[in-house]
Amino acid sequence: MLLPEGVLINGLTGEVSPDTGKYTKRLSELREVFQDRAELDRMVATEGDPVVYEVIEYKKEGSDLFFGTTTMEAGNVGGEYFMTRGHFHQRRDMGEVYYTQSGHGVLLLESRDGETRVVRMEPGVCAFIPPDWAHRSINVGTEKLVFVWVCNVEAGHDYGDILKRGMRKVVVDRDGADVIVDNPRYAA
Amino acid sequence: MLLPEGVLINGLTGEVSPDTGKYTKRLSELREVFQDRAELDRMVATEGDPVVYEVIEYKKEGSDLFFGTTTMEAGNVGGEYFMTRGHFHQRRDMGEVYYTQSGHGVLLLESRDGETRVVRMEPGVCAFIPPDWAHRSINVGTEKLVFVWVCNVEAGHDYGDILKRGMRKVVVDRDGADVIVDNPRYAA
Repeated sequence: MLLPEGVLINGLTGEVSPDTGKYTKRLSELREVFQDRAELDRMVATEGDPVVYEVIEYKKEGSDLFFGTTTMEAGNVGGEYFMTRGHFHQRRDMGEVYYTQSGHGVLLLESRDGETRVVRMEPGVCAFIPPDWAHRSINVGTEKLVFVWVCNVEAGHDYGDILKRGMRKVVVDRDGADVIVDNPRYAA
Repeated sequence: MLLPEGVLINGLTGEVSPDTGKYTKRLSELREVFQDRAELDRMVATEGDPVVYEVIEYKKEGSDLFFGTTTMEAGNVGGEYFMTRGHFHQRRDMGEVYYTQSGHGVLLLESRDGETRVVRMEPGVCAFIPPDWAHRSINVGTEKLVFVWVCNVEAGHDYGDILKRGMRKVVVDRDGADVIVDNPRYAA
């Protein structure tokens, strides 16, 4: 029988205890995501291929929901902030909730028909991600960005579209402020 | 089109901004829930029928998930701590997540076949509630107990069983400590 359990979440480190799985994404694994690939290659070679983000999950067979944390390091590649790959859900009828615990981020969203929206990720902000909006989280601060996510176990990830063509907007540092600009590499 | 939105949650007060609905439960509405109904009647008459808990939700038509907060006041009725009504979900295949923000509580759970489990509700603890476990939250502290919950919009509430027969266990104050004892009113 599936049993209830208390799962301790550390909002500063993203630790989940107990967890049922985790993975990290290093800079070299996110080469298609960033604009300045020469700079990315240089960082991978000289900075030891830094971790960009870590995902830790708590997922039990037989539950409809699962949850976990994403912890994004602070950093940028030629002025473009560290970010997740970004994805649609495979199930177009399933959304998600992102509840920011610490740090400062931008949640960049794109609807199936190309509308862009932004939600500021600040501690205490619970971002409502409706079904069929691609979403990417971006650390625009100087500390870790940690958020708790909850979604249906059947939502699934569809990374293909976003990896291939990019999102329409990118978030870059301009004199210490984050600004949203058109993606010069966007391939419609 | 359903749009993304950032929803600010105050982990100390339970405020949700913006919200889409809320309700409060006062002591007089929870008469069946407590053991000592004479004491409850006295409190209702002399203490102005205090609010026991408030639920605030953020729910959008077309989303599969919704979320909100429950804020429980500190207090007890003849030693039995303030608590929610307790419920199963109508959908037996749908669980829930309760993420405690502040205060100190006990999440009392009962499986369909009568097994009892307890999860301590402390700040940072994300309680995993599997499908088909009745759940009731109980404020065993001296301050507000505030938690964020997330579940499927179709989960639904089935209060009937628990209201009629009670849960098998109750949580009471014994010399300032919370203890779990058999429910003397339990009607199998």
